[in-house]
Amino acid sequence: MIKNSREYFMNEALKEAKKANDKDEVPVGAVVVLDGKIIARAHNLRESRQSIHAHAEFLAIEKAAKKIGSWRLENADVYVTLEPCPMCAGAMIQARIKNLYYGAKDPKTGAVESVIKLLDNPFNHKIYYEGGLLMDKCSNIPFDIL
Amino acid sequence: MIKNSREYFMNEALKEAKKANDKDEVPVGAVVVLDGKIIARAHNLRESRQSIHAHAEFLAIEKAAKKIGSWRLENADVYVTLEPCPMCAGAMIQARIKNLYYGAKDPKTGAVESVIKLLDNPFNHKIYYEGGLLMDKCSNIPFDIL
Repeated sequence: MIKNSREYFMNEALKEAKKANDKDEVPVGAVVVLDGKIIARAHNLRESRQSIHAHAEFLAIEKAAKKIGSWRLENADVYVTLEPCPMCAGAMIQARIKNLYYGAKDPKTGAVESVIKLLDNPFNHKIYYEGGLLMDKCSNIPFDIL
Repeated sequence: MIKNSREYFMNEALKEAKKANDKDEVPVGAVVVLDGKIIARAHNLRESRQSIHAHAEFLAIEKAAKKIGSWRLENADVYVTLEPCPMCAGAMIQARIKNLYYGAKDPKTGAVESVIKLLDNPFNHKIYYEGGLLMDKCSNIPFDIL
């Protein structure tokens, strides 16, 4: 796998998902990439923290904002193993994320392509998105293939 | 104004909005009500905290979850002075909020009725919502009418 390719970054997100899995959390992982480098990584911690916003990509965006000292992540990309829910897709609009890449689809709460196409609507910020990246790996949990 | 009426709770949310206004934040306030009592209140702190999720209703939901020790707020109602954005409307689905009451519409980022009707979609939780509560007060900022 070529370093810094999209597949490479998604594989790093998968490593985060494995950490969630090891903690009996729903196994979702995410990384935030800026200028070709991972600036934040996180995994789902919803039950551990009893917090609605402890989804992987939400935590990763928060960490990235802290790292650069601003909530504006205009040139940052998010890689997340599962299609984001409305809260997380909405958080990406708020954070002005540039590109979103996700792995598996979520027919139950997916807000990018499955239940609703949230990011296709005329909000104040437009995000380019692409699903299905390393989909087989992202869909095959537990992670014996990592 | 009758204590514990819906107008009363929205007026309490307006008091929170005034606090945001006094801090040069976008003036939005929210309260979370459970069993007829306010269990959490918050105002927008986005710029102060440089955090995407420091919207009034999001912070209020977080505080409420901490207070009851669970992210499940199944019997709780949210009162917020402005129509929620997709992130916050999504957070309400995540938190299993029962009823949402909001004041002014937000034609730019409103995700309940304005830009998109997010809560009308078949997600895993359904929220009853009603907009326009104390709309005149909620739309007339600064708060010389409080």
